[in-house]
Amino acid sequence: MEDGEQREWGAKAWTYLSSVRSLSPLIQCITNFVSMDLTANTLLSAGASPAMLHSPNESPDFTPQVNALYINVGTLSDNWLPAMELAAQLASKLNKPWVLDPVAAGASRFRLKACLDLISLKPTVIRGNASEIIALAKASFPSTKGVDSSHDSTDAVEAAKSLANSSGAVVAVSGAVDFVTDGNRIVGARNGVPMMQKITATGCAVTALIAAFVATDPSHAMEATASALAVFSVAGELGMETARGPASLRTHLIDSLHGLDQTAVISGVKITAI
Amino acid sequence: MEDGEQREWGAKAWTYLSSVRSLSPLIQCITNFVSMDLTANTLLSAGASPAMLHSPNESPDFTPQVNALYINVGTLSDNWLPAMELAAQLASKLNKPWVLDPVAAGASRFRLKACLDLISLKPTVIRGNASEIIALAKASFPSTKGVDSSHDSTDAVEAAKSLANSSGAVVAVSGAVDFVTDGNRIVGARNGVPMMQKITATGCAVTALIAAFVATDPSHAMEATASALAVFSVAGELGMETARGPASLRTHLIDSLHGLDQTAVISGVKITAI
Amino acid sequence: MEDGEQREWGAKAWTYLSSVRSLSPLIQCITNFVSMDLTANTLLSAGASPAMLHSPNESPDFTPQVNALYINVGTLSDNWLPAMELAAQLASKLNKPWVLDPVAAGASRFRLKACLDLISLKPTVIRGNASEIIALAKASFPSTKGVDSSHDSTDAVEAAKSLANSSGAVVAVSGAVDFVTDGNRIVGARNGVPMMQKITATGCAVTALIAAFVATDPSHAMEATASALAVFSVAGELGMETARGPASLRTHLIDSLHGLDQTAVISGVKITAI
Repeated sequence: MEDGEQREWGAKAWTYLSSVRSLSPLIQCITNFVSMDLTANTLLSAGASPAMLHSPNESPDFTPQVNALYINVGTLSDNWLPAMELAAQLASKLNKPWVLDPVAAGASRFRLKACLDLISLKPTVIRGNASEIIALAKASFPSTKGVDSSHDSTDAVEAAKSLANSSGAVVAVSGAVDFVTDGNRIVGARNGVPMMQKITATGCAVTALIAAFVATDPSHAMEATASALAVFSVAGELGMETARGPASLRTHLIDSLHGLDQTAVISGVKITAI
Repeated sequence: MEDGEQREWGAKAWTYLSSVRSLSPLIQCITNFVSMDLTANTLLSAGASPAMLHSPNESPDFTPQVNALYINVGTLSDNWLPAMELAAQLASKLNKPWVLDPVAAGASRFRLKACLDLISLKPTVIRGNASEIIALAKASFPSTKGVDSSHDSTDAVEAAKSLANSSGAVVAVSGAVDFVTDGNRIVGARNGVPMMQKITATGCAVTALIAAFVATDPSHAMEATASALAVFSVAGELGMETARGPASLRTHLIDSLHGLDQTAVISGVKITAI
Repeated sequence: MEDGEQREWGAKAWTYLSSVRSLSPLIQCITNFVSMDLTANTLLSAGASPAMLHSPNESPDFTPQVNALYINVGTLSDNWLPAMELAAQLASKLNKPWVLDPVAAGASRFRLKACLDLISLKPTVIRGNASEIIALAKASFPSTKGVDSSHDSTDAVEAAKSLANSSGAVVAVSGAVDFVTDGNRIVGARNGVPMMQKITATGCAVTALIAAFVATDPSHAMEATASALAVFSVAGELGMETARGPASLRTHLIDSLHGLDQTAVISGVKITAI
């Protein structure tokens, strides 16, 4: 029974990855300085077309050309925030999907408020770790430690449902199990290896991948999100087979993402309804 | 006949690479956030000395010390543009070679104007993909899709000649075949592997390498440019022999660039006049 | 005799690395764009928790939560300098250790003054190459070539002692031999391989590692600094065993840092008093 469901999800995930490869969606990325390299390489390896353009001088001309927008607040500052807000407004107005990574949402009052303001601009998907999602759902400072998660993702399921309901976004919580909810349904993706936590920006990179998957099917953001999380983690599992540490895992993960075939995806993806 | 010409170019390319290794030219790089890591590592592996200093507070003191300047507009914003313009003005005034990478030149009116303004400051070399060079030659918005090339490099040869003539720069167009023109002569470099397109910032990195090659022989910018393009691509070809995807190709490409010997360069370089 | 001393230092270095792994100190990094990726991955591989938050809007809330602060002026500009100064002031006021990497200190008047201003805010440790430390000790422009060291680290020992005495900081000079001094005592660490110089940002990354080591034992900053320098270089030596160039060395170095065990550290570390 569950096997049948998993195979169905595997087939769905393969369809999404194939669509990204054939359509090569153009993804505008306004992301942090740490993750730009891995994010661009993740999108390229999956078959998407990344464009790291952020200036408010450009978004009015450029955002109308893209298939999805990705915003990540990692290295936030007050001169980048208006750029993020403008691009998000444009995407919402143009009915283009946009995805938010609220990195370290609870690290400061400024950051928390910035994330909440961005959420008011109607992201299609929000993906964070447990601490970030809890901070956003509580909407009060202080709550988290830095950019790492001090909560387990299961702790955050209720927070995620609440945030999904209040924001209208699909909310994903990364952790040992990744959860995705639209406020009503919940699915869990049980892929991945612990060492992926020892590579900086894997969370940022997979959120960009979510944007690429959602770009191919904006009306099924929950399915696309769960598929992107699982596919990235399957690439991590395959990469781990030959990795000797976090740096070689990073290399092998990207290589594997580029080389993933139908069998690996369908047999590897472990998504189930909860 | 053509074999003799190719061997001559191979010998020339080897001379340039050897000069970079022995002179270790200091290259000021004002480049985008995505590419800084790969650009610096490319220059170091080739034997040059990168310096990522961009502030207008520093260029008056620093640009006089460098051997060449590299400007790349990838993650352009209005607070970086004056820094680029000041450094370009200094380089031109000091008769130091400077090289422009007009990333996604046609993505917005702001970006197109910024690139045209920079070109008026007399770059020694401009390197872009076909869409970028066509956008610059047409000088009108809209024309291209994001940062990737939607045109073939052969489409851009006339645009490149026109841009070379109007700007006084050597113009290089990257693609399956790389073309280099001074507005009069054209040479083609037929090295490289398609998977290099799946690594972010390879275009940015090779443009920095052009700056290093030109720094060793500013009065032969066309020869130095064609040589840099071919040498980087030969490193990619060697890297591809053991690569299992884009991430390991990136690693092997840099390793190969560092280890390139005379035989590999002379037998590998495929440059011919067109 | 010296063997006994070295084994003692090896045991000390192992204790520091073990503490970083068990305590996972949170390190606020305000560093340059080139090095963010390698710096974050170095800290993660060593067991620390990096947080790349720099905005002055955030430091009042965030710096009180961290275990140490790391400031690196690599891609300095006038809008980042106040962020660095505020975070340094907060760290000093809160008695949290903070570590400065004065990249290319002598490259411009603006940069030299910025570094000297930061030093007046009482860093716990300053780590640079010989040219940078000499520039700071002389406090006059011009003195160095770009970001690379044109002096040998032994040249800089007197400059380092003088800077340590005037600033109250522990001063480390990287080179073929790394020197660490508190103005009175000097120790030398003789680990590392020359190819590490061909990887961008290794200096930046090891300075972040110093911050993590010092965070676990702020009252012995000199010992923690020497240990971090030696441990990073031992990882480089192990990485070199299978490296085929600078890019694979970078990968293997990080993998090795993550995997280092007690035997490798105790037998590998080569620190001696001078």
